[in-house]
Amino acid sequence: MIVVGEKINASRSAVKDFIESRNAQGLIGLAQEQAGAGAHFIDINVGTGSGSREDEVQAMEWAVKEVAPAIDKPICVDSADPAVLGAGLAVLNDGKALINSAKAEDDTLEEVVALAARFNCLLVGLAMDDTGIPPTADGRIEACGKIADACSAKGVPLENVYFDPLVLPVSTDVTQGLVTLDTIKRIKAEFPGAKTIMGLSNISFGLPKRSQLNVGFLHMSALAGLDAAIADPLDQELMTAIKTAQVLLGRDRHCRRYVKAFRN
Amino acid sequence: MIVVGEKINASRSAVKDFIESRNAQGLIGLAQEQAGAGAHFIDINVGTGSGSREDEVQAMEWAVKEVAPAIDKPICVDSADPAVLGAGLAVLNDGKALINSAKAEDDTLEEVVALAARFNCLLVGLAMDDTGIPPTADGRIEACGKIADACSAKGVPLENVYFDPLVLPVSTDVTQGLVTLDTIKRIKAEFPGAKTIMGLSNISFGLPKRSQLNVGFLHMSALAGLDAAIADPLDQELMTAIKTAQVLLGRDRHCRRYVKAFRN
Repeated sequence: MIVVGEKINASRSAVKDFIESRNAQGLIGLAQEQAGAGAHFIDINVGTGSGSREDEVQAMEWAVKEVAPAIDKPICVDSADPAVLGAGLAVLNDGKALINSAKAEDDTLEEVVALAARFNCLLVGLAMDDTGIPPTADGRIEACGKIADACSAKGVPLENVYFDPLVLPVSTDVTQGLVTLDTIKRIKAEFPGAKTIMGLSNISFGLPKRSQLNVGFLHMSALAGLDAAIADPLDQELMTAIKTAQVLLGRDRHCRRYVKAFRN
Repeated sequence: MIVVGEKINASRSAVKDFIESRNAQGLIGLAQEQAGAGAHFIDINVGTGSGSREDEVQAMEWAVKEVAPAIDKPICVDSADPAVLGAGLAVLNDGKALINSAKAEDDTLEEVVALAARFNCLLVGLAMDDTGIPPTADGRIEACGKIADACSAKGVPLENVYFDPLVLPVSTDVTQGLVTLDTIKRIKAEFPGAKTIMGLSNISFGLPKRSQLNVGFLHMSALAGLDAAIADPLDQELMTAIKTAQVLLGRDRHCRRYVKAFRN
């Protein structure tokens, strides 16, 4: 399973400080730490919420320029604003990046998909639209369909798309685990070639002992067809769960990676 | 998820001693401990391997007579020998028992199914035949089909049958997790009304940190359609996994049982 390291996110106060003070070593440290722990992509989100759009564009350019050369993993540029995404991608310009994310909204969808086409990179497509996150799998699949159509129109192959089924907490609606799992299964069935990705910890929001719920949901999601997780690669329990899921789904030949990680 | 408490099994030396010395309090203690920890059925297996068939018949009669009145949970009579099963069922004679187990073998299948019909009780059907455990899901489904046919012939409804897909260690064949999960899905699809049951710890045999693999496999199995586990109800990690799986599959209304168990 692919892991997108989520720690460089300006919603975290330490990261916000690094960005505002242009502390490149701070960001690079977070990036290297995550790469060393097994992240396949390093997410960069510079949305501090306190600056202008131009500030965010400049922050993304700066962050990508500093972080990308310091690690041997590709970058995941993370913003809801196509201008910010484009600024990061222009710095990289190597076709290995992941865009996080498009959603089925009329005013940004085409522009974000056009970036994926122009930079020939991977794209996260959120299963949501102008009205928010649909409560049912039907609604989420419909949103994915709109994104798939836009990709088809711009020549972005489904193989480059990671659909995110999105996760709402079971504490507010206990059917939401099944809605997400069902959405994963249907994405794999209805959009052949497309991948799936999600940040799953939201499932346990508001409940005690969250980690055991997250670990269980990771296993169920892996069986349903989850290809990638947006996660903290320093979270030992989740990274262990990814290793056990790979064994249980027959993806760890002779269990070698598992035995190497856990013998002793 | 239904839990069949597995601790009264003569393959354990303490249990063998209780049986050979007719220490009823020893067995009753194990039964009450498991019932208190959440077991829905108490399995009784008296096969010490050292006595005659008649010894085993007498041991089963004795054990069921002593244990059943001491708990408010039904008994699961556990033997490969129809005579031993029949001896336990005759003592109970109340239609609430579970028979563990029938398999698709010509020389015992009819006799065990006839017991399920006669005592109007539940039956575990193992997905194996005369040649052992088929390595593929196809082979296991075929074995289930033979058991289903025998049940149909004797008037045992599929609703009373718990098919066991069986589990082989991933350490010897890494595809075996998927074979079992696929068998569970196919049982639910091809034998409508039938339930599924298994003792899942065999999945991790020969590997380090077995519990994390068992917990992951429990979640995957629950999503695939597992209805019951043959397990040690005093195994906190597995019992926790059952609770988390119920939440994630929308079976714990308002997460009340989960919050009650884990708040604090």
